[in-house]
Amino acid sequence: MLKKPLILVTNDDGITAPGIRTLIKVMNTIGDVVVVSPDNPQSGMGHAITLDSTLSCKQEHIDNGPQKEYSTSGTPADCIKLAIHEILDRTPDLCVSGINHGSNSSINVIYSGTMSAAIEAGIEGIPAIGFSLLDYNWDANFKPLEDYIKTITINVLKKGLPEGIVLNVNFPKLEKKDIKGIKICRQAKANWIEEFDKRKNPQGKDYYWLTGKFVNLDKGEDTDEWALSNGYVSVVPVQFDFTAHHFIQNLNTWNFNG
Amino acid sequence: MLKKPLILVTNDDGITAPGIRTLIKVMNTIGDVVVVSPDNPQSGMGHAITLDSTLSCKQEHIDNGPQKEYSTSGTPADCIKLAIHEILDRTPDLCVSGINHGSNSSINVIYSGTMSAAIEAGIEGIPAIGFSLLDYNWDANFKPLEDYIKTITINVLKKGLPEGIVLNVNFPKLEKKDIKGIKICRQAKANWIEEFDKRKNPQGKDYYWLTGKFVNLDKGEDTDEWALSNGYVSVVPVQFDFTAHHFIQNLNTWNFNG
Repeated sequence: MLKKPLILVTNDDGITAPGIRTLIKVMNTIGDVVVVSPDNPQSGMGHAITLDSTLSCKQEHIDNGPQKEYSTSGTPADCIKLAIHEILDRTPDLCVSGINHGSNSSINVIYSGTMSAAIEAGIEGIPAIGFSLLDYNWDANFKPLEDYIKTITINVLKKGLPEGIVLNVNFPKLEKKDIKGIKICRQAKANWIEEFDKRKNPQGKDYYWLTGKFVNLDKGEDTDEWALSNGYVSVVPVQFDFTAHHFIQNLNTWNFNG
Repeated sequence: MLKKPLILVTNDDGITAPGIRTLIKVMNTIGDVVVVSPDNPQSGMGHAITLDSTLSCKQEHIDNGPQKEYSTSGTPADCIKLAIHEILDRTPDLCVSGINHGSNSSINVIYSGTMSAAIEAGIEGIPAIGFSLLDYNWDANFKPLEDYIKTITINVLKKGLPEGIVLNVNFPKLEKKDIKGIKICRQAKANWIEEFDKRKNPQGKDYYWLTGKFVNLDKGEDTDEWALSNGYVSVVPVQFDFTAHHFIQNLNTWNFNG
């Protein structure tokens, strides 16, 4: 590659999160880096976009790295739109999102701000990868991930990704010596069993906190959940054509019009 | 059916929106209806859930219909979780979401609060349908939709939907006599070309409004966009396994592990 690739970095934990600081550090060894990231945490934002209010955006200088950085008041998906259509003067060669503090494997992909940013970049035709670590702690150890992130990123820069596909990469919470390698996986059929913690406010009015238990009933050994619990880094190709093509033929036999 | 089905109704435009009032009216002719809906508009919320703040929920009496109604401070996905795990005493037989004021066809499905509620119900194992009308106006004419909604709903109640699939139904903005019928479709490959309207606030600071143009480059005649522009109601089966299964084999040939 004669010219350094332009890499757009974002996340959903906010621009100061240790996860994105690690990702920026790794990307600085690969290309020219521009960061456009929320100014505060946006976990669980799914693919939300800001339609009914305004967005602000300001340049940041958080460390002495060579990257350019901007924080915005928007969601992760907003950050990508702003970056591509307002901040950057050319289309980035790659977008990376994360490293998320916490898992985005299996059904979590659907609630994930990290992955929605990657998907938004994919919609814009940019190869994109979301990275997440199975550790919710702010001071999680991202060090063991660095070489893997570099390998995956360089592979994607070299080979590209087919139109309509982005990668969802999750890391087990392990020391580097205990990580067994990378596994290409499908999204496990797992979900959350919600419980609401019902409380009363000082005025006696009920309110709720959402809590829940993660349940994986999928026994397949080709899933991201299996890979992660067996010490592998999981890589799931994710598409944003949500059509259940295999069910169209069946639906056409239904008696809708007669 | 000996017993009346229990139907959970929600939306993303808020509990007083004319779209959901029409949907409730139609559902009252089919089953026992419980409404759990946001207390204010939540358009563009995608699959956002409320993790970092609390939820409130209160019973409502908006008209004299037989339905039970609750409004919540949460997102459409939160409404479904609250309904199933806190409000209802048995699992609903069906969840319907909408009628959205505005299109949720093609890529809009990904930003849609209406569809995220239907998908959330699907994740919980409940057959679910999202309904949307291609008219953003608050006083849109929902009357021509009523018979179609009833037909589709009764079909789903009779036949069920396979695990992992929900329906995304969009209606053209037409008089009933001009609607040509129902077409089963795939999601068109269309997207938004964003433009940001950059302004200065009274203090001289820049801010942005997200705007954009919808562009459909998909020439297929089997898409939702084609159906809608040709006078049909579009029905797309939507899945929430986002894995691009067809790309797994290719990814396995990549040089990830050394």
